[in-house]
Amino acid sequence: MKETVLIRFGQRIRELRKARNLSQEQLAELTGFHRNYIGMIERGERNPALVNIEIFAHAFEMSLSELLIL
Amino acid sequence: MKETVLIRFGQRIRELRKARNLSQEQLAELTGFHRNYIGMIERGERNPALVNIEIFAHAFEMSLSELLIL
Repeated sequence: MKETVLIRFGQRIRELRKARNLSQEQLAELTGFHRNYIGMIERGERNPALVNIEIFAHAFEMSLSELLIL
Repeated sequence: MKETVLIRFGQRIRELRKARNLSQEQLAELTGFHRNYIGMIERGERNPALVNIEIFAHAFEMSLSELLIL
């Protein structure tokens, strides 16, 4: 279960980023996170905390609930 | 923004727990978390990571997306 939710979240972030034609660098700028962190998130290698998940939701202009349709 | 999402999440957990007539102790048993952690979450004093948020969703038998309607 643990790995699965992180992989699914990473895929969701990657899909949303690509749908907006953003590079990892551009998403890093939008969120204030480091580009390396974005890459690790997209590969399911990080377990992001709620405050950071909300920053992604804000960057994609969606609610937490919408973002977490995994 | 940071505090707000944690407060809202804590209120959501408390509401769902009470709607199910569970004590903090019982929710602790269901999730495997310490009762003190449940109390801190409900007061917005912790910033839970995605894997733990999913454990709450699983305990309440709902999706992440449903749980995070804050």
